[in-house]
Amino acid sequence: MIVPIKLENTQDISYDILIDKLPKLTFDTKVGIVTNPTVSALHLETLLSKIDAPKVHVITVPDGEEYKTLETVENILNELFEHKFDRKSLLIAFGGGVIGDMTGFTASLYQRGIDFIQVPTTLLSQVDASVGGKTGVNNKYGKNLIGAFYQPKAVYINPEFLETLPPREFAAGVAEIVKMAVMFDAEFFNFLGNADFHDEAVLKEMIRRSVELKAWVVNQDEKEAGIRAVLNYGHTFGHVIENETNYNTYLHGEAVAIGMVMANALAVELGLFEQEEADRVKRLLESASLPVSYEIKNVDAFYDHFFLDKKSAKGSIKFILPEGMGNHKIVNDIDEMIVKKVLKHFGADQ
Amino acid sequence: MIVPIKLENTQDISYDILIDKLPKLTFDTKVGIVTNPTVSALHLETLLSKIDAPKVHVITVPDGEEYKTLETVENILNELFEHKFDRKSLLIAFGGGVIGDMTGFTASLYQRGIDFIQVPTTLLSQVDASVGGKTGVNNKYGKNLIGAFYQPKAVYINPEFLETLPPREFAAGVAEIVKMAVMFDAEFFNFLGNADFHDEAVLKEMIRRSVELKAWVVNQDEKEAGIRAVLNYGHTFGHVIENETNYNTYLHGEAVAIGMVMANALAVELGLFEQEEADRVKRLLESASLPVSYEIKNVDAFYDHFFLDKKSAKGSIKFILPEGMGNHKIVNDIDEMIVKKVLKHFGADQ
Repeated sequence: MIVPIKLENTQDISYDILIDKLPKLTFDTKVGIVTNPTVSALHLETLLSKIDAPKVHVITVPDGEEYKTLETVENILNELFEHKFDRKSLLIAFGGGVIGDMTGFTASLYQRGIDFIQVPTTLLSQVDASVGGKTGVNNKYGKNLIGAFYQPKAVYINPEFLETLPPREFAAGVAEIVKMAVMFDAEFFNFLGNADFHDEAVLKEMIRRSVELKAWVVNQDEKEAGIRAVLNYGHTFGHVIENETNYNTYLHGEAVAIGMVMANALAVELGLFEQEEADRVKRLLESASLPVSYEIKNVDAFYDHFFLDKKSAKGSIKFILPEGMGNHKIVNDIDEMIVKKVLKHFGADQ
Repeated sequence: MIVPIKLENTQDISYDILIDKLPKLTFDTKVGIVTNPTVSALHLETLLSKIDAPKVHVITVPDGEEYKTLETVENILNELFEHKFDRKSLLIAFGGGVIGDMTGFTASLYQRGIDFIQVPTTLLSQVDASVGGKTGVNNKYGKNLIGAFYQPKAVYINPEFLETLPPREFAAGVAEIVKMAVMFDAEFFNFLGNADFHDEAVLKEMIRRSVELKAWVVNQDEKEAGIRAVLNYGHTFGHVIENETNYNTYLHGEAVAIGMVMANALAVELGLFEQEEADRVKRLLESASLPVSYEIKNVDAFYDHFFLDKKSAKGSIKFILPEGMGNHKIVNDIDEMIVKKVLKHFGADQ
């Protein structure tokens, strides 16, 4: 199935996302595949067997978020110059979100921009990173602080690559799918409630609907001024959890799952969400083997941490909350007491 | 006077170029001024006296093309992070083309893009770098090979800054102005032929018309696929001259001046340009104290050098030639013998 992406409001950009087995890919230009050793060992042969191009060069970068740096991007750029890539050459991002973000960023920089396509191999990157055009790297000051908005020419999502994905990483991708459903589409949430995530047709539909919803959001707000903030549902809490646990306990999607449970509790407290709805979300996350609880040791410290998030303007926090299933509300200036009251439920004696 | 810039074909971008004394600049955000010691010593006080902002931070980078690197950009980025610049902060490029290119590039990268404005202090950067959105840095493989297309929010061109510009640098800027006239506007060429370049009203008009013409070109071709190539008139020859003289003999604009004389000779040979027209261009360049001759020691080596230019597709050279005054023609595949015949006129016994 094909999901057409059109960013017509801010720029005249359109490309297709194909959700299917990898088709034959024919290019009349030099092609650079950027990947890591893990993905390469499992799937590079499959990708190479599908590519027909005058010259294919594989660039392998170390696996892991800690290598998502300007230095790695510079190494990729140098390799492209060494191999005389020109303005018509093309890059393929072959891996998860880290590879996608760095490859897109590299493509944006090389001779002020060459084409790239995404072949994401994790569920998270398939549903999340393949739409939106956010590319970039981390530095010592934080995540994704250096980068560019740059769109791929096409995205090929092959659900078969997910068969080798570790279960925790698969679940982390499901968390982002649940996020889209709770924020934007009650019917999709119902579908997920009854779905066997490992059935191929179901999986494709899950990916399709997530991608479609994200494209709809991004199209309204490519540069993250308004509705795109809704994609941060669960993230305000999740970022604090990730930070408190030194980024070594939870995968991002797992922290977001817990964060959604917390956001829902706050929404219930404010009368925006029924307790029964919050329970349904929690059950769905649990059924996907996602964590749904976290012991907040110090409520005041947890609260103060919100203000360190780069997305929060100083002195105010925007909470992204569900307002009934499938609807969202951005709420500013919730009374500190109310937030802390909710956080206390996640304290030691929850 | 104000020149409105509208890039409506490829993106919905518009900004104004003010050609006048620097006005009062009021911002409600943190402002970072990127400059070099030379410009800073001469004019920083003037700029600072015009800025009203909650916080102004000056970032000084070393003066010179050799510092136009990714490393310098990373240093600027780090300084912005150290000083807690946020997504609403703004950069001001205060200097010549090197400062403008690096500041725009840095702005494009910081948190995936913050606003920047240009306050160019050389004639070349006033007429050339302030329109077009080309930003970036050099690396060991060549010039401007890493970068982004990124547009400023405004450009303030103050001709008074040119009073302290070394005469050779002033002349180098005039070369680019002559280029625009020969390629696009015979009337403007006539105006330049009778102009006192140091009269302030004349100078403003020269800058205005150049900027307007460049904006017209860029608007048709933001990403350099077609007509924008015409801006390389004189550059095909000029790049070879710069390279043969190790970039330490001629300023870029000076090499372009000689390159235009060579291109004109080729155009005359092909019957596109009258000898009398070529002579008029040469006289104008001479009157601006620009070099108009260059001794080609080895015609074959000079010719082969064309193919090393990154803008030439392998095996073919596009020559940008005048076709009568004020008109341009892009000519492919001129017979090697004809080109070499023209080059021989610039040989040792010219």
